[in-house]
Amino acid sequence: MYTCFICRYHEIATKGDNRRMFEEKLIDNLRYQCQTLEELSGLSFPRVRGRIYVRREDKAAFTGEQVEKIKNALSRCSGLENFSPALECEPDIEQILNLVRNSAGEQLQSVIDQKGRVKFRIRARRSDKRFPMMSKDIEIAAATTISEMFPKEQLEVDLTHPEVSIGIEVRDINALIYYQVFPGPGGLPTGSNSPVLALLSGGIDSPVACQMIMNRGCHVDFLTFHSFPYTPMASLEKVQKIAAKLNTFQKPGTLYACNLSEIQKQIRDLCTEKFRTVLYRRMMMRIANMICRRKKLNAIVTGEAVGQVASQTIINLGTIDAAADFVMLRPLCGMDKLETIRRAEKLGTYELSIDPQPDSCTVFAPPSPSVAAKLFDIEREEAKLGDIQPLLEKAYEEMIIS
Amino acid sequence: MYTCFICRYHEIATKGDNRRMFEEKLIDNLRYQCQTLEELSGLSFPRVRGRIYVRREDKAAFTGEQVEKIKNALSRCSGLENFSPALECEPDIEQILNLVRNSAGEQLQSVIDQKGRVKFRIRARRSDKRFPMMSKDIEIAAATTISEMFPKEQLEVDLTHPEVSIGIEVRDINALIYYQVFPGPGGLPTGSNSPVLALLSGGIDSPVACQMIMNRGCHVDFLTFHSFPYTPMASLEKVQKIAAKLNTFQKPGTLYACNLSEIQKQIRDLCTEKFRTVLYRRMMMRIANMICRRKKLNAIVTGEAVGQVASQTIINLGTIDAAADFVMLRPLCGMDKLETIRRAEKLGTYELSIDPQPDSCTVFAPPSPSVAAKLFDIEREEAKLGDIQPLLEKAYEEMIIS
Repeated sequence: MYTCFICRYHEIATKGDNRRMFEEKLIDNLRYQCQTLEELSGLSFPRVRGRIYVRREDKAAFTGEQVEKIKNALSRCSGLENFSPALECEPDIEQILNLVRNSAGEQLQSVIDQKGRVKFRIRARRSDKRFPMMSKDIEIAAATTISEMFPKEQLEVDLTHPEVSIGIEVRDINALIYYQVFPGPGGLPTGSNSPVLALLSGGIDSPVACQMIMNRGCHVDFLTFHSFPYTPMASLEKVQKIAAKLNTFQKPGTLYACNLSEIQKQIRDLCTEKFRTVLYRRMMMRIANMICRRKKLNAIVTGEAVGQVASQTIINLGTIDAAADFVMLRPLCGMDKLETIRRAEKLGTYELSIDPQPDSCTVFAPPSPSVAAKLFDIEREEAKLGDIQPLLEKAYEEMIIS
Repeated sequence: MYTCFICRYHEIATKGDNRRMFEEKLIDNLRYQCQTLEELSGLSFPRVRGRIYVRREDKAAFTGEQVEKIKNALSRCSGLENFSPALECEPDIEQILNLVRNSAGEQLQSVIDQKGRVKFRIRARRSDKRFPMMSKDIEIAAATTISEMFPKEQLEVDLTHPEVSIGIEVRDINALIYYQVFPGPGGLPTGSNSPVLALLSGGIDSPVACQMIMNRGCHVDFLTFHSFPYTPMASLEKVQKIAAKLNTFQKPGTLYACNLSEIQKQIRDLCTEKFRTVLYRRMMMRIANMICRRKKLNAIVTGEAVGQVASQTIINLGTIDAAADFVMLRPLCGMDKLETIRRAEKLGTYELSIDPQPDSCTVFAPPSPSVAAKLFDIEREEAKLGDIQPLLEKAYEEMIIS
């Protein structure tokens, strides 16, 4: 019966002076994610030598259902490299071998039932160097125990591609045995860096960009644009679902939904057609500036990838960038579309994103958008709009905040 | 004997009006990479229905050595999703089955020799719909041919994890058979977007950022900084090796090597210690601006990842960004360090990068660098330097260009 989870981190471990801060943020995140498991109050999160443990304060074993719930919670904690549900005993070789005997049988047998034999491996680590046996000797003793449990022809040691991997960690106050290593999101814990604002659309890319930036330690608020009545409110509902999914990885961020249609109409009526998309994007940056300034957010995140669509040529990105007053982060700028799709599938937003809904960017979209809108030309176009600030203020004031 | 390579692309295929331009850039890249194979002059690169073929103009078969060289060349062509060396015959079912009979034996036998049996799969595609058999029927006919070649117990059809996969493509003027699919870099062909300047250090990250941006269609020139005599010239030689490696993926870009030591001394002597790294980075951006302006490059690429080191907090990135006059692209800004390392290993720069050499950024580096250098404070620090432009001009003029 599992009594704890071993939580491992990687990038945090490379930190010098600030390592403690990062570890504490990670514990905050672990606690926050596990908090939602109502019946699991009374968890503790001790930090011991480069590991964090999740345990019941009463040290009782978790039920199978609880194990699943905690696995689910931990898989969403940025900063966590991976984790393992573990069994515990005293740091005593007889107790360790007993625990192997009592727990390994089921794991090995299930593979034997399927395939007639099982490839397995044992990896021992001794972080308490006072323990009288070396790691290698612990592995040999455990392998001997296993070999007494099954006929010889059903067992095969395979160090590179085992079907069952038995991990043993011997520490000063306890020993741990685990069979599985589950991946966390990696990176740095949310909240260890400044909060940011991400432009979120109903597309495949921007949710992936949001999650990547969360995994660099930033709490993310979201800004989406709609063009009601030129786009249906269903477009906004789609983005709300995506934001809700992303918010399962952090303390929920705010979703700002801004109606760009009045500004788009002005651009349609007064500016050169082929520049519309770049002009829209620059207006979006200005709304983003206003939110960042008033809500004290420090960067603007987008899902733009160089060259993916007409508005994302290097020249157009430069012209759009010039309207942003905050540093722009584009985690996907160098990514292949297929890789972005794979990431969206893993994240669980792909299915939501492919639901076809009209997008604010496509309202009055020109048939042949400019792929090289120079700043000089665009500033001349914007001059045609006169004072756009009142329309920006109105759009800002009327934002739907959820 | 292989007589051609089938080159497949993905993201280019999603392009509308401009698709032709992207395809032509890809052919340029294929031609350029294959040009270096001296004995292989006389290659043609026909484009047929969403595929590009590499063939000898005399249609002769490639030697085994030539196949390896072309594989190597194609694996470096950005925009290429994957490729397969292929055998060709007339689009006639008897000829196709003959070619299967003559070529599949060796592929299947080598697995049978190892394992006693082989899992295989046949995938047929008929792009010429006038061909009298459906894809499914071609597959059945080919499978029948295979089944006559080996005892039944040595063969197993496995559609998901085959050990040998036989691809058959029937087109209007020929039929192709292939056994392997090798990955290309994906993305978009170099030269299909504007040229950029990348800051290249001896670290693990920046070479990965360079390659990602190349794969978005940008030709990359490189800017590196050294601090001779405070850093050895060996640091520069290391970066030259990395640039040479990156240049195997594109028509060679220029490496600009700038000595920052005079400027760093001024910063050391006149400015607050904890701000040094951010002040260095802003000076680097100014040199980058000068190169971009004079060489007509349109973006600055760095290997920065949010939160990875003290200079890469969101606040510091914003302050550094403010010194750049061109759009900044940070392909790694949302990436986990372990993933960057994996990419560097695959790229082949990791081994070069881990050679320990002092870095320009670490010269006079403060023990406790600021993690939140606000633009207001940094501008005040820069005012202490007086007119820095002559020193920047001098550093620019004395750059080593290779």
